[in-house]
Amino acid sequence: MNTRNLIGYSYLPELGNKFNAVDPALGVDLPGDFYAASLSEADAAVNLADKAFAVYRNIGKTKKAAFLRSIADEIIAIGDTLIERAMSESGLPAPRLQGERGRTTNQLYMFADLLDEGSWVEAIVDTAMPDRKPLPRADIRKMMVPIGPAVVFGASNFPMAFSVAGGDTAAALASGCPVIVKAHPAHPGTSALVAEAIKKAAEKNDIPEGVFSILYDNGYAVGEALVKHPKTKIVTFTGSLKGGMALLKMARERDEPIPVFAEMGSINPVLLMPQALENRAEELAKTYTDSITMSAGQFCTNPGLLLAVKSAGLDRFKQTLAEGIANINSATMLTPGICANFDKLSKGMLASPNVSIIGHSDKLNAEKVNQGVAIVTEITAAAFLADEKYKEEVFGPYSMLVVADDMAQLEQVIDSLHGQLTATVMAEKEELAAYKNITDKLANLAGRVILNNPPTGVEVGNAIQHGGPFPSTSDSRFTSVGTSSIKRFVRPVCWQNWSDDLLPDELKTGNPLNIWRLFNNEWTK
Amino acid sequence: MNTRNLIGYSYLPELGNKFNAVDPALGVDLPGDFYAASLSEADAAVNLADKAFAVYRNIGKTKKAAFLRSIADEIIAIGDTLIERAMSESGLPAPRLQGERGRTTNQLYMFADLLDEGSWVEAIVDTAMPDRKPLPRADIRKMMVPIGPAVVFGASNFPMAFSVAGGDTAAALASGCPVIVKAHPAHPGTSALVAEAIKKAAEKNDIPEGVFSILYDNGYAVGEALVKHPKTKIVTFTGSLKGGMALLKMARERDEPIPVFAEMGSINPVLLMPQALENRAEELAKTYTDSITMSAGQFCTNPGLLLAVKSAGLDRFKQTLAEGIANINSATMLTPGICANFDKLSKGMLASPNVSIIGHSDKLNAEKVNQGVAIVTEITAAAFLADEKYKEEVFGPYSMLVVADDMAQLEQVIDSLHGQLTATVMAEKEELAAYKNITDKLANLAGRVILNNPPTGVEVGNAIQHGGPFPSTSDSRFTSVGTSSIKRFVRPVCWQNWSDDLLPDELKTGNPLNIWRLFNNEWTK
Repeated sequence: MNTRNLIGYSYLPELGNKFNAVDPALGVDLPGDFYAASLSEADAAVNLADKAFAVYRNIGKTKKAAFLRSIADEIIAIGDTLIERAMSESGLPAPRLQGERGRTTNQLYMFADLLDEGSWVEAIVDTAMPDRKPLPRADIRKMMVPIGPAVVFGASNFPMAFSVAGGDTAAALASGCPVIVKAHPAHPGTSALVAEAIKKAAEKNDIPEGVFSILYDNGYAVGEALVKHPKTKIVTFTGSLKGGMALLKMARERDEPIPVFAEMGSINPVLLMPQALENRAEELAKTYTDSITMSAGQFCTNPGLLLAVKSAGLDRFKQTLAEGIANINSATMLTPGICANFDKLSKGMLASPNVSIIGHSDKLNAEKVNQGVAIVTEITAAAFLADEKYKEEVFGPYSMLVVADDMAQLEQVIDSLHGQLTATVMAEKEELAAYKNITDKLANLAGRVILNNPPTGVEVGNAIQHGGPFPSTSDSRFTSVGTSSIKRFVRPVCWQNWSDDLLPDELKTGNPLNIWRLFNNEWTK
Repeated sequence: MNTRNLIGYSYLPELGNKFNAVDPALGVDLPGDFYAASLSEADAAVNLADKAFAVYRNIGKTKKAAFLRSIADEIIAIGDTLIERAMSESGLPAPRLQGERGRTTNQLYMFADLLDEGSWVEAIVDTAMPDRKPLPRADIRKMMVPIGPAVVFGASNFPMAFSVAGGDTAAALASGCPVIVKAHPAHPGTSALVAEAIKKAAEKNDIPEGVFSILYDNGYAVGEALVKHPKTKIVTFTGSLKGGMALLKMARERDEPIPVFAEMGSINPVLLMPQALENRAEELAKTYTDSITMSAGQFCTNPGLLLAVKSAGLDRFKQTLAEGIANINSATMLTPGICANFDKLSKGMLASPNVSIIGHSDKLNAEKVNQGVAIVTEITAAAFLADEKYKEEVFGPYSMLVVADDMAQLEQVIDSLHGQLTATVMAEKEELAAYKNITDKLANLAGRVILNNPPTGVEVGNAIQHGGPFPSTSDSRFTSVGTSSIKRFVRPVCWQNWSDDLLPDELKTGNPLNIWRLFNNEWTK
């Protein structure tokens, strides 16, 4: 494991403030010294990325695809060392991290396949109409091109899949944008191992130096310098509302404002419909016991808010949920800070006289520290509606059940919510027809609307949307998961009146890349 | 002409500060009293739009298409009254405005056709894979949905095509977003006539009240209230950098930041290549005499910057350009303010000892006021590079020729430029191969790169891109012209695990709307 900052193909000297990763389960420092990068190193990384961009954006899709596949292969080649380091740094169990590694490499392969297929560039051709009246039409052809150097912030909760070679990096590199990763200080070792894999893949595939760099910092200075650098063209981030908003502010106050895609979390309302509760309260309670506590509740799509109308079915749901939660083992949270924040916020909720406990885990693992102990609370809809504080995300194994007197009051609760990544309905099919206006509202509230699945578990594919109205993300028009996430990193350019030999292959009349295009208003290949 | 503020189907009482349109050619007030809307009227317009949104976003594409076509028909039905009023308010000649009316109605028809065809929603379907290992895949289906109430600011330079029923409104209404227009105070009468046409079309097509409203104001308070309203979800604007940045700031400082697409102008560099100058200096000079002075230079794509290496060909170009410009009649500018600003900025350029005059119009029409008198200046590349002030847009019939010693210095000039709507190369084909790096740089600088056409004249179609890197627009990933401009107003929503009968028609397995979709990774219809 090479722990040093990496700019292009050069590891930097060990200078700057030293820090170590912490094992959150044991509360002890882990081996490996990391050094906060300097501001001049941040400057150098972006300048080199900008230089590399001029070459990389034109190297062609085959080479980019090979590079992405090679990164995945190199990550797999690290073997158990990667899983072990990630376990130590994140407190997450091996199967979860093995799954995440698979997701990470699958994302890289997916973008490689997307490049091979090629139609993602949205090529549109309007050929010349020299005889059109009153004015002739020039030949105009458009496609997506990469926007420029991207700064990717590693997320705490997915040390691989939303980190150094995660979805953001894979999409950016696929698009043709160089990437400077600001490693998350909670898992610098995992980051260093993956960075080394990317470096190897870049060298093997003769990728211009500077297409990938990684910098470490346990403070904020390096991230700030990267975001404010005039040659940085886009920033991506997955984390807290506070962190995302700070980056947005920096990006917007630049001389040249740049886009930031920040995924800032969500409380992911789940609507438990009366008939479903009556028919299968216990099954629903079991599903949500798991969903609320999976990975210690540290998912962006954790169901933090359950909504229902009071009923006998709901009472059964609560009872089973209480029993289920009581049996959930405590789990190590990602960092001491996240655990402290979870304790503070969940205790804060409980301090309110309006909030009562439905159930909590009885199984604290006293041999480990930073344990997230699951808890589910309850509040009346009236009380929930009276104070915005109940809408705050409690990141961790926590959920709050809002109990309404009737469906009308439940609808008021839905109307009061801010933008969400997901909104879920657990319902019997026959009861949905009567509540079309409610399901409509959920689709207006969130990026993903789900029927009878828990919101946790985000499929990576073409149709997925992981991004919703503010504050769940900074721009609901984009997604950070799936093939469409590449759109964040590209912009359209049109070529007017160029001859075929001077155009990019994607736009040549003969369609040498055999991609789907809108050609004179017809979709053809 | 009903000059009153219009919210939904109700014209408001004549209250608030009264103002009149001004005939810029004569400097006199025009008939028709307009009243600045109040802040509570602005609030009411957005609230009604939000209410209408819940219905309008689900009314189906056929009805929306009929509405758009009906707007176009009603605009045509106004007849010469519209052209005459627009002439009086803008100083633009009748043929120019007749052309613009055609462009405006064509845009409406184009979006109606786009709705009929239907594939613009980018439907993507990934069907369930219950047996997939290690985890089953849920059925996930995604399409674009409208984002919510849109505030559209009318532009000064296109009183129809970028105004009340212009491209922004047409795209927003096509997407399913209600529109509140803040009319441009320079042409309130033109705006009122078109607003009445939209109201008629809405009533005829049984469109929910509040899908369209228009408010007047000769100050900034109404625009500010509309942008800051919590139910406003997107803002579009075409105008100055200062105006666009003010709106961006407001939108970003809201509790819920919202996207603003601001098209803020550009100096649209034109690269005159040596061989082209040698072969056809006179023809190029004639082309650019027209392009620089068309509509008194009041186009976003006006070629404000000509770039060339010194040569005998360039001298011939300058001489013919000087002769051509001398013969251009002065033309009425859109408003006294725009004319005053043009005089100030062009005189400011000339005040610099580094700037000399190549040619200027000798034909001032002394019978009219607010006359834009064409002028073309010259500066050395060295002087241009030494001061940022030469990159400022001079909105009007003005262009500056930057003369470099050699191609290397010209490349330095290109490297120094900020983002542009367009970048143009006038070249012989055989000389382009040697300068691939330069044409590459132009594509990195602008949204539209043009070979051997002037940048003025923006085709409305599928392949056009009217939007480039900052500061030409606020987000280079979108366009404000052409069918793709609808993408500003929509966001993706995915439905997970819904049965066919509960899904929007666009996503049903049988594809009842017969649209192009990415279905299990294959493009099909």
